[in-house]
Amino acid sequence: MRNSLPPNPQIDANGALTHLLSIDGLPREIVLNILDTASSFLEVSDRDVKKVPLLRGKSVFNLFFENSTRTRTTFEIAAKRLSADVINLDVARSSTSKGETLLDTIDNLVSMHADMFVVRHVSSGAPYLIADHLNRLGRSDIHVINAGDGRHAHPTQGLLDMFTIRHYKKDFSGLRIAIVGDILHSRVARSDIRALSALGATEIRLIGPKTLLPAEMDIAGTRVFNSLREGIRDCDVVIMLRLQSERMNGALLPSAREYFNCYGLTPEVLALASPDAIVMHPGPMNRGVEIDSEVADGPQAVILNQVTFGIAIRMAVMSLLAGN
Amino acid sequence: MRNSLPPNPQIDANGALTHLLSIDGLPREIVLNILDTASSFLEVSDRDVKKVPLLRGKSVFNLFFENSTRTRTTFEIAAKRLSADVINLDVARSSTSKGETLLDTIDNLVSMHADMFVVRHVSSGAPYLIADHLNRLGRSDIHVINAGDGRHAHPTQGLLDMFTIRHYKKDFSGLRIAIVGDILHSRVARSDIRALSALGATEIRLIGPKTLLPAEMDIAGTRVFNSLREGIRDCDVVIMLRLQSERMNGALLPSAREYFNCYGLTPEVLALASPDAIVMHPGPMNRGVEIDSEVADGPQAVILNQVTFGIAIRMAVMSLLAGN
Amino acid sequence: MRNSLPPNPQIDANGALTHLLSIDGLPREIVLNILDTASSFLEVSDRDVKKVPLLRGKSVFNLFFENSTRTRTTFEIAAKRLSADVINLDVARSSTSKGETLLDTIDNLVSMHADMFVVRHVSSGAPYLIADHLNRLGRSDIHVINAGDGRHAHPTQGLLDMFTIRHYKKDFSGLRIAIVGDILHSRVARSDIRALSALGATEIRLIGPKTLLPAEMDIAGTRVFNSLREGIRDCDVVIMLRLQSERMNGALLPSAREYFNCYGLTPEVLALASPDAIVMHPGPMNRGVEIDSEVADGPQAVILNQVTFGIAIRMAVMSLLAGN
Repeated sequence: MRNSLPPNPQIDANGALTHLLSIDGLPREIVLNILDTASSFLEVSDRDVKKVPLLRGKSVFNLFFENSTRTRTTFEIAAKRLSADVINLDVARSSTSKGETLLDTIDNLVSMHADMFVVRHVSSGAPYLIADHLNRLGRSDIHVINAGDGRHAHPTQGLLDMFTIRHYKKDFSGLRIAIVGDILHSRVARSDIRALSALGATEIRLIGPKTLLPAEMDIAGTRVFNSLREGIRDCDVVIMLRLQSERMNGALLPSAREYFNCYGLTPEVLALASPDAIVMHPGPMNRGVEIDSEVADGPQAVILNQVTFGIAIRMAVMSLLAGN
Repeated sequence: MRNSLPPNPQIDANGALTHLLSIDGLPREIVLNILDTASSFLEVSDRDVKKVPLLRGKSVFNLFFENSTRTRTTFEIAAKRLSADVINLDVARSSTSKGETLLDTIDNLVSMHADMFVVRHVSSGAPYLIADHLNRLGRSDIHVINAGDGRHAHPTQGLLDMFTIRHYKKDFSGLRIAIVGDILHSRVARSDIRALSALGATEIRLIGPKTLLPAEMDIAGTRVFNSLREGIRDCDVVIMLRLQSERMNGALLPSAREYFNCYGLTPEVLALASPDAIVMHPGPMNRGVEIDSEVADGPQAVILNQVTFGIAIRMAVMSLLAGN
Repeated sequence: MRNSLPPNPQIDANGALTHLLSIDGLPREIVLNILDTASSFLEVSDRDVKKVPLLRGKSVFNLFFENSTRTRTTFEIAAKRLSADVINLDVARSSTSKGETLLDTIDNLVSMHADMFVVRHVSSGAPYLIADHLNRLGRSDIHVINAGDGRHAHPTQGLLDMFTIRHYKKDFSGLRIAIVGDILHSRVARSDIRALSALGATEIRLIGPKTLLPAEMDIAGTRVFNSLREGIRDCDVVIMLRLQSERMNGALLPSAREYFNCYGLTPEVLALASPDAIVMHPGPMNRGVEIDSEVADGPQAVILNQVTFGIAIRMAVMSLLAGN
């Protein structure tokens, strides 16, 4: 299977993971290896001393060109529990604003003996650019993790979603999965769709208003619904997306209240799904916009468990990249 | 004594400290235990290697919803000297500004296996809200420290003030203590008054202009003075409060110079107090506004010793909360 | 030699380094000791576990009164690789803006048992003020490193430049060194000129437009050129300075393009220097303003090696100050 892939900057010549850029193009066995490794890390965060020495003496740089305290925190915790030295670069205020190019910044940090870059960027492809640059320098010992690039990908979110689904549903075959909301602008949706396809989910349904769905019908293997009540029927997994407030202010949507009436997940609507359906959300939630508090805090929600699993996934990815 | 208290979110069923929210309602023996524990930590900061492993592998979150570099730094140092992993959350710029509720943020961090929250907030009661939420979740293993909430409380400041007084005066009985300045807006004053009452100080005098004193005479066991020269007479301890510049600009006060003339602590005024009186200030000082440099740098000032004791107090509180 | 120096706040009574404030007044043997110590630290950053315990349990404070993410990062990495606890103080937003004096802030951090201050300040002399204050307090156990003060000095940059030159050229005697660009506003240039003089470079040439050269001919032992093509001839080392964009916007220079035509380092101009000349730059580079990309990425550029050496220099300085 690996051989049939086009050249993939995140996989080295031996088929091992060198960067995590996107779930797209990630061989199924690597995805499964990450999930299995994360299982073994779940226990570390439950210990009295939540620390293992796997990245001791390594320098992990959080390069957040776009501010995201929550995502930065999850990577910082994961790296510190692996005993790495973590350096947070407030890149918005740094040399890049002094006119230095992105790759000059990277070259500098490489010269300081960086081991790993966790990159968040408004531009799709920025983490690829960095990984490609490192590959061309022959620096296979330095690793890039995409922590969200533009509308493109957010692979650790996709992986933690897969971890969550596997945790509760054991197997992907036979699963009907609904992704609800602003599919058009969501890197979470993109990452999830790719991962679900790779892992063999039976049916992926994309549910949302026409203005928030990809115009082209180019997402293979998915079914599109404009009605939540229709689309959610008999689903085993319901992934709610965050509605960015800028969408509400813009021309794409009438109002938060009207959105909630059509696409907000209430107990009544959830009752249309499979009785043991789980409800997921990448956070932060807009209660009363895309999700009703009764559902968010109800027995079918696994939203906070996703957060716990997310730390284990990030520890697993960092540990695997570092060669453990 | 403990049994006569109303239900107290900071004390568990066995009477042990689970959160530090306010000195109000803290049993005297717990206050004394914190002071005694701090004594034993004073020595750690004098070592060549200023580190003990008591919080190794614990995740301490500094949640500063209001910026205070100085206070944040003291908690960061204390936690690092206890070997904790410290994560500073710049909450003003994070998910809360994306519309997430305070308790959703807390739930997320709990799911990341937080062990301790150090909380600073403009709203009185925010740390209580968090502690109460954790108690209702049954998470007695996660602890909240109030690092200043609105005008309400700043208990580690109160405790370090008590530590300082005990250090220099040995006993609280028989002590006359003056608190001078903006009592009305000061959480330091509130915390001190409560602690001094609990520890049995003989007389607490509140000194300041009418506009900066609580309108109601509701602070039991205190005497109020509008004249510094009268109020300071024969006092053993003089606690000067910082005058916030916003008070000076507002209608509450005529000018900084006039304030200094009436309430600034000069050597001449200090001479009216007991000859071995100590002078305290929570910092940062406004030299020439509430205190004369000759006093601030003079032999009776113990202002910098308060800072040293403050690290020991914060280490003691964190260590006790963590069950050591 | 030491005895002939005026009283020097960075050298103690035994001639040992207590602060690093400026290369000016630093005895030659101390400069050489720092370079030799840095050589031994180069290897640490190449290890699998990039950490030595020399500063374990020490508290290093990054006091950046002026924002410089890049410089702050190099000190943070150096201190963490020495196992220190690093506390970054965002001083612009802290107590100093609440009207506290610089020395009151320092006194507070001293009371928290700080071991080392890394200070960046817009005002020339601020690190001296702090060092002098500590010396007067008799606190020879607390050390100040100047990380750039106004237009005055940036000694670790000067030292890493000397390390770089020695690494490639072995000996300073017989060397012709060109410093090109905005000499007038550059603390890098000042630090380099002093270090080169101390180490016995044969000829130092200052090259730039009249508006960016010191008006007074007070920099002893240097030759001034307004033509890059003339000045660079037969040089062994070419140090390019960053052109601050505020110069370009101001009245001092016509335009970036015109500057590049006259003072930009292109392959053609570099060919006038010695064939084995090395090209240095303190970063961040303005490609196409002071340096052509072909030169910046070419075989004679040692710009990224400077960055690597800079970490070793900072580790060496911290380690020597701490008494190792």
